[in-house]
Amino acid sequence: MSIIVNRRDLDFVLYETLGLEKILMADRYADYDRESLDAMLDLCQSVAEDKFLSCASKLDANEPTFVDGQVETIPELKEAIKAYQEAGLCASAYDADVGGLQLPWMMDQALNGMFVCANNPAHIYLFLTQGVANMLNACGSNALKDKYLPNLVNGNWFGTMCLSEPQAGSSLADIRTKAELNTDGSYCITGTKMWISGGEQDITENIIHMVLAKIPGSPPGVKGISLFLVPKNRVNDDGSLGEYNNIALAGLNHKMGCRGATNCLLNFGESGESIGFLVGEPNQGLANMFHMMNEARISVGMSAVMTALGGYLYSLDYARNRPQGRSLVNRNPEDSQIMISEHADIKRMLMAQKAYVEGAQTLIYYCAELIDTKKISDDEIANKRIDLLLDLLTPICKSWPSEFCLEANKLAMQVLGGYGYTREYPVERLYRDNRLNHIHEGTWGIQGLDILGRKVRMQGGAAVVTLREEIEATINSAGSQPQLMSFCQQLIDALGLTEATIAAVDQAEDPSLALANATVFLDAMGHLVIAWMWLKQGVAAIEGKTKKDAADTAFYDGKIAAMRYFFRYELPKIQSSMRLVAELDSTCYDLTADQFLGV
Amino acid sequence: MSIIVNRRDLDFVLYETLGLEKILMADRYADYDRESLDAMLDLCQSVAEDKFLSCASKLDANEPTFVDGQVETIPELKEAIKAYQEAGLCASAYDADVGGLQLPWMMDQALNGMFVCANNPAHIYLFLTQGVANMLNACGSNALKDKYLPNLVNGNWFGTMCLSEPQAGSSLADIRTKAELNTDGSYCITGTKMWISGGEQDITENIIHMVLAKIPGSPPGVKGISLFLVPKNRVNDDGSLGEYNNIALAGLNHKMGCRGATNCLLNFGESGESIGFLVGEPNQGLANMFHMMNEARISVGMSAVMTALGGYLYSLDYARNRPQGRSLVNRNPEDSQIMISEHADIKRMLMAQKAYVEGAQTLIYYCAELIDTKKISDDEIANKRIDLLLDLLTPICKSWPSEFCLEANKLAMQVLGGYGYTREYPVERLYRDNRLNHIHEGTWGIQGLDILGRKVRMQGGAAVVTLREEIEATINSAGSQPQLMSFCQQLIDALGLTEATIAAVDQAEDPSLALANATVFLDAMGHLVIAWMWLKQGVAAIEGKTKKDAADTAFYDGKIAAMRYFFRYELPKIQSSMRLVAELDSTCYDLTADQFLGV
Repeated sequence: MSIIVNRRDLDFVLYETLGLEKILMADRYADYDRESLDAMLDLCQSVAEDKFLSCASKLDANEPTFVDGQVETIPELKEAIKAYQEAGLCASAYDADVGGLQLPWMMDQALNGMFVCANNPAHIYLFLTQGVANMLNACGSNALKDKYLPNLVNGNWFGTMCLSEPQAGSSLADIRTKAELNTDGSYCITGTKMWISGGEQDITENIIHMVLAKIPGSPPGVKGISLFLVPKNRVNDDGSLGEYNNIALAGLNHKMGCRGATNCLLNFGESGESIGFLVGEPNQGLANMFHMMNEARISVGMSAVMTALGGYLYSLDYARNRPQGRSLVNRNPEDSQIMISEHADIKRMLMAQKAYVEGAQTLIYYCAELIDTKKISDDEIANKRIDLLLDLLTPICKSWPSEFCLEANKLAMQVLGGYGYTREYPVERLYRDNRLNHIHEGTWGIQGLDILGRKVRMQGGAAVVTLREEIEATINSAGSQPQLMSFCQQLIDALGLTEATIAAVDQAEDPSLALANATVFLDAMGHLVIAWMWLKQGVAAIEGKTKKDAADTAFYDGKIAAMRYFFRYELPKIQSSMRLVAELDSTCYDLTADQFLGV
Repeated sequence: MSIIVNRRDLDFVLYETLGLEKILMADRYADYDRESLDAMLDLCQSVAEDKFLSCASKLDANEPTFVDGQVETIPELKEAIKAYQEAGLCASAYDADVGGLQLPWMMDQALNGMFVCANNPAHIYLFLTQGVANMLNACGSNALKDKYLPNLVNGNWFGTMCLSEPQAGSSLADIRTKAELNTDGSYCITGTKMWISGGEQDITENIIHMVLAKIPGSPPGVKGISLFLVPKNRVNDDGSLGEYNNIALAGLNHKMGCRGATNCLLNFGESGESIGFLVGEPNQGLANMFHMMNEARISVGMSAVMTALGGYLYSLDYARNRPQGRSLVNRNPEDSQIMISEHADIKRMLMAQKAYVEGAQTLIYYCAELIDTKKISDDEIANKRIDLLLDLLTPICKSWPSEFCLEANKLAMQVLGGYGYTREYPVERLYRDNRLNHIHEGTWGIQGLDILGRKVRMQGGAAVVTLREEIEATINSAGSQPQLMSFCQQLIDALGLTEATIAAVDQAEDPSLALANATVFLDAMGHLVIAWMWLKQGVAAIEGKTKKDAADTAFYDGKIAAMRYFFRYELPKIQSSMRLVAELDSTCYDLTADQFLGV
């Protein structure tokens, strides 16, 4: 079995639970049908297994090094990237007008997901580049696009996002990097950027940094931030590479996981001029940078899902093949040991992984479907509903997998026992890799403030109203299936509890206290949404079971069991969480720093 | 502030919440009073900070290597161990009759806890040696003790436990290592032992392995396992070292964390005779090995607590000194940033750590107090109650901190954000170290089977009856404190729910199904017990607040707040867990291996 993808499950999510088939009927995707996409998935699976998975452990053990101001990475990383590029996959994220494959985003996520699962740190370079190119395409001038976009799209150059600084991590209002206008319209960039993934590498001949900086005299805080394109090496008008743009690598951060992706401290303009070019309007930097924020954050969630999928598939395979112990009713030491997949607690740990991973995966693809649907629709009202749903669900896409798919990785290790704790097996690496996702692209706490402080309130609560409509549509589609009745009721009750909680928070007089338990709310509302995704899958599984051949019965029964697991083992947990949020519990909020330690 | 101990809190647990003062009044501990123990703690804190903490990061980054069949460790590890030995601390775990310090176990745990917090992998060598010496002292013949015990007690030699084999991890019934009787009464040991912590090292001139093996002709399974003392180097009758005993290091396991402690694959008797000596009676090996099992498992829990304490203290210190962002009601970017300890979600993450760490720490010391009390009491009935309580609480001591103190480590990293994810800060190392505790000394799942399958049922449920009496005593001690009334009620309700759950499981017809959710029960019952520990602390804090000077008010208020946190944020979670257990939910149990993947 593959340990980077369950193709049967991918088919189930894309075509049976969700509507990729319908998306493909649009003119925009006329080049593709299910067969051609399947062939593309085959190709990607093969490249991901042969080139990415094969060096994942080596890349982790031999992280990039800092030698004489330069980064050195292992050759296998460069070969993997080259194979991805040669397969034409760098173009997967773009429309045809800029030379892209113009794939549905659902499929872009599916094929890139295999690479993430196989070797997330290697894929980070590609993912960031796609983000930079899309940002440039959306906000840059034609001159900038002509000069820089083609080499980003074809993967000859890579891109980075330079937001944070040592004194300004989550608080971008406090960045100090300066951009001073030159007479030719370009800018001199000076300052220090921190946590820059892919900020230096020896894979591509140039790196295009998207840098947030402040033009002197601009307003304080986030209102005075502008976005600049700053190349590692300057680019001549004929497209050839010019001189070095004086972006000095000041150091590499050594991470617990995702080690193969460099993470850099960069100094701009310290040893000479670093020339940058304004992208979009002055002081609109944050808006321009966040233009792709929903997609970027959904992709972070996808990376958490895929990293956990790797652990789930590996531990499942291990459990089916590792003999250890006997059943509780036959302890005879002279009988053979049984496979550990037969022990109830191993089943529980596999089931929890399945419920987390496949539940979250469905949410990611559901959001991708919304994005695709909007692209092929002229219906303004429908598109507004999609925007509302995406805005509401994005913090959940980002943070729920970061929390619960990390938990899945923890369980994968537990299934392997002592072996799982060693670097001879991949599950500990995946666990370390996944811990990153709660931290970058907006921390856990920031997602909580986003959803409870903004998203559930925006436009008078319109997003939650839309969510209710969508959940009710799923419940209607469940019809009167006796297996589903109690879960439908449980889901609608959980939705009611969520709405009541939001209403209680709305009435709070102290806006800080209102959001004191925002993260608790975020996790709980995530459970509501994932339960909904499991109901969607349950409906599809029951339908599939009646239609398909017997060979699929085990698959569908597994889906139905995992749905039941989520509703019985997970969803009830939100009761106590929502109560804390609704009651504006101030236990933590009231505490002062000196009370923790007492001295 | 120290990042390996909160001495104010240690005083609170040992002397205000629990009764170390009373223990010290016994003749057995006549050599000690609070003042002398405080001085010993001062000494230990200083050695732990200067010699153990100082090299923890280096030891992690430079794990022991396997060179020409030998292990090489960094010199700082040897210096740290030497400092511990020179301070006389190797003797901390033993009674005076074998040359030990005869400390209360509460104090032994407290002083060793600082070393664990400072550098757990370095301490593992010492911890294992103390276990081996105690086992030898309890079960060995006088001749064996005379020859081997003194050098273990003074730390000149280290010890190991050799239980697992590649095909026999949790299932000791399946070990194959053979012990064949020689004419002189010794045995030839042949076989392969796996996961042997400290199995080879370059710190001490000899290593004493305690090896489980089977004498040919003995009964199958665990009833035919015997215990042998097998030295790395043979020992002559005059005590001098003889020839090499042919225990070959076949390889080192490379762990995710606790890297400084070697973990070995050892071959006995492959390249020549490995001579071993029977400890105790033939076929009593498991009983002899498990003689110290309660203490060993409680110590594993302690190591989980201490590893999380390190993360808690570090992240607390960081949060008090890291400016980032502004309050939700003043976003003015021209005002200074505030310390992150003022953000509500950071407070929540610090509070959760405090509640997990200090709650679990109290449980460990409570059990240590039971052990000490038994040692100084002739009251057979009271001692039987203690045995019941210890048997019942041991799986919780082992597994609850392994689960929830690991969660604390996860939160410590989140408080530090990106910094926390780098190896430049200690929190990621502590997180990696702590993940081991759920795996060794009986996995999570095994502790679940132990508590629900055995401990709550033994002697007709006598242990749970005793637990109820103890919990009721705490509730009585809470008197009519208005701050505590609701928590007392919540605790007694949770106890009732636990008892009802046990009763429901008792009535199950299928013994396998009855235990299908044993791990869920284990975690939930752990929450009950930790809530009880928090009530104990709450009672002590309220009492302290009325008695002590104002300087302590913040400390006591923090304790009361953490108690409230546990009762409001944590204890309610057991409702849904206990329901699953009581209803014999078979969602996971019914699943077959092929239903997970469906192919």
